Amino acid sequence: MSAAPRRPKRPVARTTRPVRSGQGRPQGQGRSPGKSPELGGDQIEGRHAVLELLEAGTRTTQRVAMAAELDSSDQLDRIEELCRVKRIPLDVMSRARLERLASTESHQGVVAKATALKPVELEELLMGEGNVTPFLLVCDGLTDPHNLGSLLRSAECAGVTGIVLPRHRAVRITPTVAKVAAGAIEHLRFAMVPGIPSALDRMVKSGLEVVGLAGEAKRAIYDVPLARIPTAVVVGSEEKGLAALSRKRCSVLASIPQAGHVSSLNASVAGGVALFEVARQRR
Amino acid sequence: MSAAPRRPKRPVARTTRPVRSGQGRPQGQGRSPGKSPELGGDQIEGRHAVLELLEAGTRTTQRVAMAAELDSSDQLDRIEELCRVKRIPLDVMSRARLERLASTESHQGVVAKATALKPVELEELLMGEGNVTPFLLVCDGLTDPHNLGSLLRSAECAGVTGIVLPRHRAVRITPTVAKVAAGAIEHLRFAMVPGIPSALDRMVKSGLEVVGLAGEAKRAIYDVPLARIPTAVVVGSEEKGLAALSRKRCSVLASIPQAGHVSSLNASVAGGVALFEVARQRR
Repeated sequence: MSAAPRRPKRPVARTTRPVRSGQGRPQGQGRSPGKSPELGGDQIEGRHAVLELLEAGTRTTQRVAMAAELDSSDQLDRIEELCRVKRIPLDVMSRARLERLASTESHQGVVAKATALKPVELEELLMGEGNVTPFLLVCDGLTDPHNLGSLLRSAECAGVTGIVLPRHRAVRITPTVAKVAAGAIEHLRFAMVPGIPSALDRMVKSGLEVVGLAGEAKRAIYDVPLARIPTAVVVGSEEKGLAALSRKRCSVLASIPQAGHVSSLNASVAGGVALFEVARQRR
Repeated sequence: MSAAPRRPKRPVARTTRPVRSGQGRPQGQGRSPGKSPELGGDQIEGRHAVLELLEAGTRTTQRVAMAAELDSSDQLDRIEELCRVKRIPLDVMSRARLERLASTESHQGVVAKATALKPVELEELLMGEGNVTPFLLVCDGLTDPHNLGSLLRSAECAGVTGIVLPRHRAVRITPTVAKVAAGAIEHLRFAMVPGIPSALDRMVKSGLEVVGLAGEAKRAIYDVPLARIPTAVVVGSEEKGLAALSRKRCSVLASIPQAGHVSSLNASVAGGVALFEVARQRR
C-alpha cells in the first residue's frame, strides 16, 4: 500500500527531490505580514496558467500539486517533465485534497505555488521595453477578477508593455485573475501606484497620450492618432466607468462607437477592442 | 401571518393579477417534446437581462420571480413597475425557493420565464435588416456559454444584424448565455442551420464576404476591405478554432495580428475585436 495516491491512467515520473505531502497548504506564501498590499500571483491554478509559469521561468516555482486520477493530457505530461527538469517538487494528491488547496473551481487538477509577482516602478514602465514605444494599460477600479484576467490576456496579446494598478482598492492578481489570464501575467510588467490620477499626471508629463475610455465621449478612439506615440489606455470600473478625477487627468477621452440597443460593452471586451485599436494603428 | 414572504426593505406593489406561489417551476416552458432542438432563451436570470426582456418587449414574458429581502435597487423597482404595467405575474418568494428555480448562480434574485426565442430563416438574415447591409456573426462550435453570451453582447453593440448557430452540437441560449449577453438576445435575430459549411456556401453565393477568423492566417483582418459589403464573421471553437470544412467554405481567412508570447486571445475577445473592426470600417 502506498501513502501517496497515484493517477492510474497516466504513470507519474518521480521527481528528483522527495514529494512533500500531508500538509494543508504549501509553504512559501511570499507574503510579509505588515507590509503594504502585494501584487499577488503566488498561487497559480489551471493547466495553461501553470504550464506558462513553468515555461516562461520568469520567477521561481516552489512546488506543483496535481490531482491523482486525471485523464491523459499533453499539458499534464509537459508540466511533469518541466517539474523534473527544473527540480520542482511535484505532489500528486487526491482530488479532495487538491480542492482544499485550490482557490478557484477551475483548477483543472493543477495548482502551483510561486514567488509573488514583483511590481516595478512606474518610471520603469514610462521608459518602454527595449526599443518598443511604451504602451500601457491602466486599470482604474476594475473589481471583477474575470474581467481583469481577461484584460491582462488581451493586453499581452496586443503587445502592451506594462500594466498600472492602484495599490489600494480593486483586485490583485488572485488565482482567478491568473487562471483567466492564461499565462499572460508571466510576461507582463506591473506597477502599483498609490493613486491613479497622479499616475496619469506623470504619464501625461512624460509625453504619453493617455486615452481614457468613456462611453459618452464624442471622439471615437479610431480618430485618435496613436501610431507612433507612447500611449496609455485607461479602463474604468465595470459599474461606473472612469472615476471623475481620473477622467480629468487623461489627455484625451475616447469612445468605441456602438450601434446597438444594449447600453454598453463588457469592460474587458471594451478594453480589448481599444488595445487592439492601438495595435492596429501601430502596424 | 402571510403565506407569501415579502422583501421587507422594499415594499412590493401587488400585481393586478394574483401572484402564484407554491409551485416548483413556473409553467409555460414553451417546449414541444419531440420537436427539433430549440433556440432556448425561455429562462432569463439576472437584473439587467430581465429588465431588457421586459423593456424590449419583443416576446411574451409569462412570469417573473423575485427573491424576498433584496436591498433597494432602481433596477428591481423598474422590473416591478413593468410587471404591473404589462400585467405580468410577479412572484415574490424566499431566496431558497428562487435558487431552486434558477439555473445560474448569478441570478441576482430575479428569474423570468418567457416564450422561447424564435429563430428566423437564414435567407431572412441574408437580406439584411431594414436598410442596413447584412452583418452576420457565425458561431461554429463555441461550447462555453460565457463565451457565447459575451460574443452576443459584443455583436449587438457592434451592430450585427443576425446570428447563425448550428442546430446540432454547441450551446443554445441557456440562462447563462442570456445572463452574460445582458439583454442583447432581445434585439438579435438568430438562424439555426443544419450545417455551418453549407450555410457558409449559401452566404458566399449570395454575395457576402465570409471572413473566417484563423490565428495562423497571413492576412490581417485590418487588410480585408469590409466597409461597404455584406459581411459574415465566422468564429470557431475555443479549443480547435474553425473546423476544417468551415475553413474551406469561407471566402477569406483572416487573423488578428498578435504581439505577445501567450498563444492566443480568448475566443469571445477575438470575436469582439473582429466585429468592431467591421464596425470601424463601416463608419
